[in-house]
Amino acid sequence: MRNSIGREIPDFIEGYTNVRPFSGAFAMKPDMLRQATAVKMRRPSDSKLVESVEQVFRLIPVRDGMTLSFHHHFRNGDGVVNLVLATAARLGIKDLTVAISSVFPVHAPLLEHVRRGVVTGLDTNYMSGPVADAVSQGVFSRSVIMRTHGGRARAIECGQLKIDVAFIAAPAADDYGNINGVMGPAACGSLGYAMPDAEYADYVVAVTDYLCDYPLSPVSIPQTRVDYVVKVDAIGDPKGIVSGSTKVTKDPVGLKIARTAAGVIKAAGLIKDGISFQTGAGGASLATAHYIGNMMEQDGVTASFAMGGITSYMVNMLESGLLRKIMDVQGFDLEAVRSVGANPNHIEVSAGVYANPFNSGCIVNKLDTVFLGATEIDTDFNVNVTTGSNGLIMGGSGGHSDAAAGAKLTLIVANLLRGRLPIVVDKVLTATTPGETVDVLVTERGIAVNPLRPDLLEKVKAAGLPVKDIVQLKQEAEQIAGVPKSVKMGDRIVAVVEYRDDTIIDVVRQVMS
Amino acid sequence: MRNSIGREIPDFIEGYTNVRPFSGAFAMKPDMLRQATAVKMRRPSDSKLVESVEQVFRLIPVRDGMTLSFHHHFRNGDGVVNLVLATAARLGIKDLTVAISSVFPVHAPLLEHVRRGVVTGLDTNYMSGPVADAVSQGVFSRSVIMRTHGGRARAIECGQLKIDVAFIAAPAADDYGNINGVMGPAACGSLGYAMPDAEYADYVVAVTDYLCDYPLSPVSIPQTRVDYVVKVDAIGDPKGIVSGSTKVTKDPVGLKIARTAAGVIKAAGLIKDGISFQTGAGGASLATAHYIGNMMEQDGVTASFAMGGITSYMVNMLESGLLRKIMDVQGFDLEAVRSVGANPNHIEVSAGVYANPFNSGCIVNKLDTVFLGATEIDTDFNVNVTTGSNGLIMGGSGGHSDAAAGAKLTLIVANLLRGRLPIVVDKVLTATTPGETVDVLVTERGIAVNPLRPDLLEKVKAAGLPVKDIVQLKQEAEQIAGVPKSVKMGDRIVAVVEYRDDTIIDVVRQVMS
Repeated sequence: MRNSIGREIPDFIEGYTNVRPFSGAFAMKPDMLRQATAVKMRRPSDSKLVESVEQVFRLIPVRDGMTLSFHHHFRNGDGVVNLVLATAARLGIKDLTVAISSVFPVHAPLLEHVRRGVVTGLDTNYMSGPVADAVSQGVFSRSVIMRTHGGRARAIECGQLKIDVAFIAAPAADDYGNINGVMGPAACGSLGYAMPDAEYADYVVAVTDYLCDYPLSPVSIPQTRVDYVVKVDAIGDPKGIVSGSTKVTKDPVGLKIARTAAGVIKAAGLIKDGISFQTGAGGASLATAHYIGNMMEQDGVTASFAMGGITSYMVNMLESGLLRKIMDVQGFDLEAVRSVGANPNHIEVSAGVYANPFNSGCIVNKLDTVFLGATEIDTDFNVNVTTGSNGLIMGGSGGHSDAAAGAKLTLIVANLLRGRLPIVVDKVLTATTPGETVDVLVTERGIAVNPLRPDLLEKVKAAGLPVKDIVQLKQEAEQIAGVPKSVKMGDRIVAVVEYRDDTIIDVVRQVMS
Repeated sequence: MRNSIGREIPDFIEGYTNVRPFSGAFAMKPDMLRQATAVKMRRPSDSKLVESVEQVFRLIPVRDGMTLSFHHHFRNGDGVVNLVLATAARLGIKDLTVAISSVFPVHAPLLEHVRRGVVTGLDTNYMSGPVADAVSQGVFSRSVIMRTHGGRARAIECGQLKIDVAFIAAPAADDYGNINGVMGPAACGSLGYAMPDAEYADYVVAVTDYLCDYPLSPVSIPQTRVDYVVKVDAIGDPKGIVSGSTKVTKDPVGLKIARTAAGVIKAAGLIKDGISFQTGAGGASLATAHYIGNMMEQDGVTASFAMGGITSYMVNMLESGLLRKIMDVQGFDLEAVRSVGANPNHIEVSAGVYANPFNSGCIVNKLDTVFLGATEIDTDFNVNVTTGSNGLIMGGSGGHSDAAAGAKLTLIVANLLRGRLPIVVDKVLTATTPGETVDVLVTERGIAVNPLRPDLLEKVKAAGLPVKDIVQLKQEAEQIAGVPKSVKMGDRIVAVVEYRDDTIIDVVRQVMS
């Protein structure tokens, strides 16, 4: 069958239950109860301190076939996933599913566990590095599930992703399991992506290298949800916490795109007191925020809040008074880590509050605008941020689809050519974010407005911005770079790309090597 | 049948399902899943602002037989319960159950709604004033349920108290339902007792008189759990927030008791660095904290945390450095309200984190000591804080049973005579807190140690404190005041006194008038 954006979705997918094709960004209405975990009790004299991860495995006990979850707040500096999985391997446990909010190159040892049958399932929102390559090549016999950041919170909170044990890398913890991310040698800032896991897992284990006096504060995850506390030597390398690109671009083309994007936002009437926005950590996105900041200063207005992965650039805007609040689900650099621990207007929020579409209203619903990247966008405005031009998985939605769905105005900011390939194509290799939630494509050679937004087209034209049809942009790119050859993919489905609402927006097929 | 402390519990109680007799403070092992509420969704363009409480009733819609919940953070200044119930009456709704964390004299209009059949059920942790009198006299045809503060959180979180609609008096709210208690004209401080309701009710309504720009911070209750926001003229009278007695006693007898209590705590070896304690708001309790503070200063140690209803006295200890943290489920005066909004070491906690016995470990489990009052204590150390000498309900556990169960050392501090009546009796009229969780009775005429604590008896004797057998204290009191006549109660059960673990510790029978 084909879903509502024309992607072919098989009736049956190995390792994925309840196949439901995507049918529109807000078409799915939830009809379920929240996940209900087992109620527990602790006597006053009980201790939660356990001397090793192995001991925790025995106490719970961790068994074959369980789902273990992890957060990705250490990004490429994470030390806990490898530690826990090595313990599982040593104990001879098989058939685990790893549910981790994102996978990075540091997680390469996971592959050895997959080959040995220790790990047979993967559920994540983003992946890059050796694991992503191997997934694309079919290392898992079951299909991997790729979710959005909000969709993962939804799946955990609404019962589609059942976590047996959440192992939470805890930069600071007390002996009774209160946790925060802002203290200790490996402070990572917000623990937003660990919060749904902590709330809904059957067992919750805090793994920390910084054990504090009771009661720890601030509290990001409370003692009432934590069963065991393990002290280890190091939970991660703080240097790995910093994301690759968190600086405003200096590339003149990138700056031109960002200036144009800011112009679109102004034309849409959104440069007003109380504007709210989300930006990715990429250079052009941050540059767009920079130009918006300039316009706000000129107009003497301030923004109500910025959301997203937070960088020093947002912290500067907060401290200079341009921003009233930061809502922080994830810090991208050490300035963000410092600020969320010190500034009461810099607020830690959970992944569910950030972007779960199935609650009484998440934060992305309140966004005026978001500016996001793309590896491909098609003439229906569907965006691919999952696979690269070689067909290999090199990312995933993260919060891309969530913010696009929530914001009043969603912009894709991108060079018309990516490397030597046109970014606009007839049909994206993998659809990550549906076109109906994307309003404008901004490139250095002009902007294209989604035909679903005639109101916006009019405003953008009136502002004298260089509007083109998206097909025309595609043709211009092809005139420069030629028509790209389509990638030949195998038949086997290696990953399901789940939209935030529990439907399938696309599948990723095996790369032919 | 009789429960494990010898109280007679009928097999069947009108209005109470699943009668289970109390069988020991930690005997009950939970065997259930957490309450699962319906999952919802909101589109980005949806608004939660509703113009009146009546409109909210129609939107939900509120129907006959529902359970509506409320918090008591405004105590005798609350304006929301009466407003909501008047709306229900006006709309002709019948047979409602009111689940409110505590009832005060201001709630007298509830009685008219009971007489007219609008309200037929009451579920609360404490009651005083006209409603308490009327309950005692049998105004409800169904038995009222009286819980502990931790037990109410447990009942909500574990599915025994199902709330249809939580109406949350919100000192500050934004238009998307983020709520806190520290801003606005009716700031009440911590919203700890509203948090379980917000988390588990089917519908959550924020009723506020102080609507703020989005996003409000700090956030005590998040937007993801709030369905509607209603702005009204006033949610309560801030002057009513201050509890009756929040000053250290000046009465020399009270001071003597407090000095002795502090001596017991010292003798038990608890005046040490990192001590943690809870105190009620009563004068003798606060005086005990005062003497403990003096001893800590002499010994050069600081306390790790104080818990409970918070007064200016605790805030002073925090600010002078004697206390490292305050855990605040409820503010008892305006200094506590100011501090919890300003001092990062003054931490708002939910009722569940405070005292729910059925989670992975609540705060009372970490208490070294608690000093509490009593209206009666029997020779088995069972304590009554529910009914007065005339048999009328004049209180309830609140956090009494919870803190007593959790703390390593529980003291009852009380004058040997209450008015003209001995406080020590053979058998308390109503058992609120079981004797096994009470370690010492401290009076002005000596102290009695629970025989379950021979270790403590030895230490107290070694410290030269005036130890007596509790029977001897009873006899001394009776020599002064005579043997009190027992109150004659009717047969009909007007209230079930539920222990924190979902068992029945006692029942209250109708007062014969």
